[in-house]
This record gives sequence, C-alpha cells and structure tokens, in this order.
Amino acid sequence: MGARTEAPPVSWLMGTVLTHPQLISLAAGFTDSDSLPVEEVRQIMNEVLGSSRAARAALQYGATAGDPALRRLTAERVCALDAQPGASGPWSPDRVLITNGSQQLLYMLTEALCDPGDVVLVEDPTYFVYLGILQSHGIATRGVPMQPDGLDLSHLERNLCVLKQTGAIRKLKLLYSVSYYQNPSAVTTSLRKKAGVLALLRKYERAAGHPIYLVEDAAYRELSFTAPTPVASALSLGSDRVVYAGTYSKPFATGIRIGFGFLPPAVLTPMLRIKGNHDFGSANLLQRVLSRVLETGLYEKHLVHLRQRYAGKARVMTEAIREHFPSTVECREPEGGLYCWARLPESFKSGAKSTLFRAALANDVIYVPGEWCYAEDPSRRRPNHEMRLSFGAESPANLRVGIERLGKALSQSRAKRPVRRPLVSL
Amino acid sequence: MGARTEAPPVSWLMGTVLTHPQLISLAAGFTDSDSLPVEEVRQIMNEVLGSSRAARAALQYGATAGDPALRRLTAERVCALDAQPGASGPWSPDRVLITNGSQQLLYMLTEALCDPGDVVLVEDPTYFVYLGILQSHGIATRGVPMQPDGLDLSHLERNLCVLKQTGAIRKLKLLYSVSYYQNPSAVTTSLRKKAGVLALLRKYERAAGHPIYLVEDAAYRELSFTAPTPVASALSLGSDRVVYAGTYSKPFATGIRIGFGFLPPAVLTPMLRIKGNHDFGSANLLQRVLSRVLETGLYEKHLVHLRQRYAGKARVMTEAIREHFPSTVECREPEGGLYCWARLPESFKSGAKSTLFRAALANDVIYVPGEWCYAEDPSRRRPNHEMRLSFGAESPANLRVGIERLGKALSQSRAKRPVRRPLVSL
Repeated sequence: MGARTEAPPVSWLMGTVLTHPQLISLAAGFTDSDSLPVEEVRQIMNEVLGSSRAARAALQYGATAGDPALRRLTAERVCALDAQPGASGPWSPDRVLITNGSQQLLYMLTEALCDPGDVVLVEDPTYFVYLGILQSHGIATRGVPMQPDGLDLSHLERNLCVLKQTGAIRKLKLLYSVSYYQNPSAVTTSLRKKAGVLALLRKYERAAGHPIYLVEDAAYRELSFTAPTPVASALSLGSDRVVYAGTYSKPFATGIRIGFGFLPPAVLTPMLRIKGNHDFGSANLLQRVLSRVLETGLYEKHLVHLRQRYAGKARVMTEAIREHFPSTVECREPEGGLYCWARLPESFKSGAKSTLFRAALANDVIYVPGEWCYAEDPSRRRPNHEMRLSFGAESPANLRVGIERLGKALSQSRAKRPVRRPLVSL
Repeated sequence: MGARTEAPPVSWLMGTVLTHPQLISLAAGFTDSDSLPVEEVRQIMNEVLGSSRAARAALQYGATAGDPALRRLTAERVCALDAQPGASGPWSPDRVLITNGSQQLLYMLTEALCDPGDVVLVEDPTYFVYLGILQSHGIATRGVPMQPDGLDLSHLERNLCVLKQTGAIRKLKLLYSVSYYQNPSAVTTSLRKKAGVLALLRKYERAAGHPIYLVEDAAYRELSFTAPTPVASALSLGSDRVVYAGTYSKPFATGIRIGFGFLPPAVLTPMLRIKGNHDFGSANLLQRVLSRVLETGLYEKHLVHLRQRYAGKARVMTEAIREHFPSTVECREPEGGLYCWARLPESFKSGAKSTLFRAALANDVIYVPGEWCYAEDPSRRRPNHEMRLSFGAESPANLRVGIERLGKALSQSRAKRPVRRPLVSL
C-alpha cells in the first residue's frame, strides 16, 4: 500500500500555507479556536484525575470497543437526536465502537468491507480525504450527483444498472454519504432520500451476491445553526445495512479526537478485530473525560454556544460573498457545518493549477479547489469550477478580508469564454 | 480484509476472564495500576489547560507527524539512550512520527512496506499481536529461533537462503525484532546481533530486488530493572534500513496511548500519508501533556519509581516459581519488561486446549499459551510447551497466589510421558 498511497492534496495546501505567512486560509477544516472548551476540559480533567480510582482506570488500557459509559451515552445521544424512545436495536450501546475521530472509523470500515479492486459509490462532490483513503486501498469510485436534498436517485439507479450490466456490481461494497451539512456542499440529505438509497442498494444485492452497505457519515450533524436538525439518521430506517459514523471532535474539540460508529453485528465483529490490531482501543483518558462532559451537560451547553458562533461566521462569509463576488457565482447559505460551496460559471476554472487559484494565492488567500472533491470516475468529466470555502478556523474579521481578497482574485482572473451550463446540478 | 482478520486470541482470554471473577490473570499485558502517574498527569494537565493559548493549541488539530516539541524531545531522549552526542542523522526529530501507541506504528508499517502474499521474518517466539496484524494483511511469516542474546544468525542465513532458492525472497519486506526484554521471552538482543541481522538482510537485497528493513520494536526498552540498558539501538548502526518503534504507553501510562517511530526518509513519506488517512495525527492534547511531562523531568522521575516496582514484582514472581513449580520448568529471571517465559519439558503441553490450561483455569489462574507466540511456519513444528507469565498488572500478593495456583495446576496435570529435548533452544 505504501507505493499506492498518494500524497494527500492537503499536504500540498499545508506546505503552501507555511510559505505564505500572511495567508488567510479558507481551505483548512480546522475548527474555531476561540470557542474551544478550555475551562470545561480542565474542570472535568481535574474531576477524573482527582479521584484516585477513576484516575487509575483512565490511565490504564480500556476495552477495545471503548469505555462502556461513553458507548452508553453515545447511544442515548444519537437516540435522542433521532427522537427515539430508548437506546435499543440499531441504537444499542452494544453496537457502538469508539474510534480516534470518525476518520479512523471510515478507514477501518474500508478495511473491513472492501478489498483492492472493489467499487465504492460516493456523492458528487464528496469528502476528499475519504477519496484518498479509497485510492490508497486500490478501490475504484463512481460518483452520484447531489441534489438539494441528497443523492439523485434516478442517477444512482442508472449507476447500479451499469454496474450490474458490466458485472462490477459484484465488487460494489458500499455507498458513502455525508448526510448532514455535507462536506463540501453543505447539503443535508432528507430521510426520504436515505430510504430511497437503501431500497435501491437492497434491490441490487442479489446481483451483487453480498450486502451493500450505506455508510452514513454524520460528522457535521450536531453543527446545525439553529435547533438540532430534525432529519433522522438512516439508523431509524431499521435496516441492518446501515453503518453510522459520528464524532465528538468537531462539535467539542478536535485535539481530543474521539469519534464513534453504530455498526450492525456483521460489521461490528470484524471491526473490533481490526481496532484491536490498530491500537487496542482509543486513549482511555480522553474517553473518560468525554463521558463526564456528556453526563454533566457541559457538552450540550458548549454546543449551544458553538452553533451560535458558527452561524455568525457563516453569515459573515455569505454576506462578504454577496458583496465581493461577481453575481455569476452561486453560493447557498449553509444551515450548518463548516463550509460554503461556491459555484463559478463552468468556464471559470478553479483547480490548483488555474489562473484563479494562482491569483488567490498572490492575494494571500486560499481555498479547496472543487475538483478535489470529485471521484476519479471515467463516466463523466471532473467538474473544475467550484470552491470549498471554510468558515471554521479563521476569525470573522479574517473571513471578511479573505473573501474580499478572493473577490479581487476572481475579477483579476475572470474568464473571457462564454458561460456554459454546469455539468452537475446541485 | 474483514473476512480474513481472525479473532485475536486475546479476545478469547478476555472473555474467559469475565466469566471467572476470582481469576488471577498472568496473561494480560496491562501495566501496574498502583504506580500510574495520576498526580503527574493532573499537574501537567492543569498547566497545559491553565494557559489559554497553550490550551487552545492542545484542543485543536495538530500536525499529522505529531507535536513538534514531542518529536524533538523524543529524538533527544532516544539519542541519549543510545549515548549519542546530538539528535541528528537517524535520530533527527524530522524522522520521528508520533502514533497511537507503538501498536499503530507497527500496523501502519505493515501497510506501508508490505502487500498481501508477502513474507515477514519474525523471532521464534514473538509478540503475538503482531502475528495477528500480519495474518490480517495476508502476509506469510517465517520464524527464526532466539538465543540468549537475540536471533540465531546462522539459522537466519539458512532462512534467507531458502527464500532465495524458492524465489520467495522477492516477497520478503522486513524482519521484526522485539529487541529489549522481549515479549514474550524477556531476551535482550545484543548490538552485535543487530549488526549481524542488518548485514545478512543487506546481503540478500540484491536477490530481493528491494530494501529489506529491520523493524526494531523497543517497546520495553525503558522498563529495565536497574540503570537504563547499555545496549544501543539499531539506529546507532547508521543504516537506512532500520525502523525503530518506541512507546510512552508502557513506561508512563497506557491510557495515554502515545508511541513513536524513527523512520528513514523512504519510509517516512508513505507513513505520513497513511497516518493522515488513519486519523490526521494523534490526539494533540495527549501529545502536549507528554511533552511537558518529558520537559519537566516528571517522566524520568516516574520511570525510576516504575523500574523499582517492576523489578520487585518480577522478583516476587520468580521466587514463587522456584518455590511452586517443578524443577523441570526453566525460567530465567528477567532483567526488564513485563514477562517471565517459562519452559516446561517438551512433552508437557501448555496450549489453550491442554490439560494444563484447563487445570489452571479450574484453579482460577490464567497465562498466555506459548504456542500463540510462534508464527505459522510450515518448516517447523509449532512449540507448545511454554507459558508467558505477566507480572505487569497483578499486585505482588496476587502474583504469589497466582503462581502457587499455577504450580498446583502443573502437578495436577503433569505429563506421564518421558521428557524429550526441546525443539527450539533459547
């Protein structure tokens, strides 16, 4: 795998950041530093380390699946988000696996469910780091276009049909969907669409000869700007083909790196073995601290504050976009998450080698080129006229300046060619 | 990989422990709970979280390679252990990668250097969890017998010769050696042997057509019972074929789960990509805390205490063994680490299905069967007459009782067959 694993585009970005000290980064997926829960963590850390018994348990190895209290609290929390009466069935604590961020869960899922040469369906666009994971495992990807409420189901059915006709359906193991305030497009998938995806995947299982899983990545679910989002997760559909990935990293603290999954029994068994081989279980101390943060209500309190903070920053960004970007740039106001997704006229290239990207860099601002978020799918041209703009890390003042600089870069590099219809509808 | 990854034997052991509440476990690799550095962690945690700037940095994402201060301190520390004047060359901080325990480093190394169908050389016996990692990646293993100062070099050369003759040398990517107070045999490999291994591997590189690495797992290096061990690591041999794996988990706190590697540039590059895909880097908060624990000298102070503690527990165990085991059981007094390695007469089976193991369980004591520590190597019979006895987790009083119970189980199940010469010399 060493030879196959490509350099992630992020490394290139980070190198660029280091050589441009004045740069405002609208690229980084970092979270807001000013709102990190410093006092909360200190308080709970002292509590956990203040009792000698609790402290020793926290500083010792724990169970591979995770701290039992954290598994139970996680089950209760997701259950409540799904407006379910009790943590049982798909929400059972027994199905929860605690990982080093949801990233490790996605990595291990790929190991557990896929082999080199397999095929995975992803959203067009999708979370580009996951594309890197798939690539490193020698897995082919096919993109399914996104609509404002999730995947285009008729396009998904066409994909499945083609895979069946070519026999590649036997290599299809899962469909990956970032279901809330998607990275990068900010789209939230409706429950109806989740049900539709599951039904279609199930329909093609006979041809596949094995289960095809829907992997629901709910990393941004708790980062809704108003009340918790009312859309239930795919767990609520009662299918044993749903894997749910969540995280405490982004809604609480990325430096704590705790994520989790809800796994059907057939997936949990291999995942526990793989987790044992990776690291025997995530750092127990961090799990104990998170358990107490959840139990004491500090988590919920912090989240209320964080939602307001990100809502404010998103507003700053979209207002600055309206002010400084040409009116031909489309950008819907996000309702949660960390990203704005800006679509330029299709003739206007935004890739890492484009005039625009170079102009942005010359103006000391950087973004994630939209093309990075599209799978290597030979059945369509890779769109190259979008930008992922993060309002996570920079201050509101910097967001304003960053967008103003990017607006300048846009006018400096405006394409002269006529505007054509975009390839992909969103 | 999900279908291939076998249930680790440890899971079975842990299940057994749960159903026998009175059990004394001489099997678990857990560390000593009473000596965990509770106060030290609390003090440093308050320091790190007390400054708002330091706290925010600790609760945010860090660099994929690890906290720069921790990489530097790690380089300085291993450099000092190797009695080298300055952290440069193989000890350069630039070559350090911070991981979730050294376990994650071993896992990622296997991903970076090997492909399914490859061959890895291991010590006979070796760390059984690593055998599980290799198995899950579809990698074949060949065992090289251990002598009191490390691998049997002439046997290693025979192995290499056979691999060359059969063409399998082209699949040989690395040799894995637990070089200090080995898990399970407690053997420390001399520097002369490390040099011998490297020279032999290098000799066969032309036939292999690629580099063959020596992976030195130094997990127990700091757990020497007296002064730090004077044997230098293979890094001191100046070869770019050495990978060094170390950890802060066992010498400080397993609940903190921080390990590290020193990697030559050709290995570091793919490893950074893989680490990025796994989790973007280990939890920053824990890394910051460890940095300060090292900087303030608390780590060194704790280690002095820990060494005394384990030396005492090892003495309790070996004295109890002398008192309660038949004189036909060989067991050298360990000079560091967490394990005694007890060799029964060869006719006396110790495997998980043996009369002895069942008798031990009936007497409420458990050990790791020696056979688990041997690779699946078709060229020799798998030895099945040894026991790995851990003095890490249980109290001195429990160690005494545990060994007494095991002695009882030994006399209850003593084999009637004549004693034959052991297959493997140690």
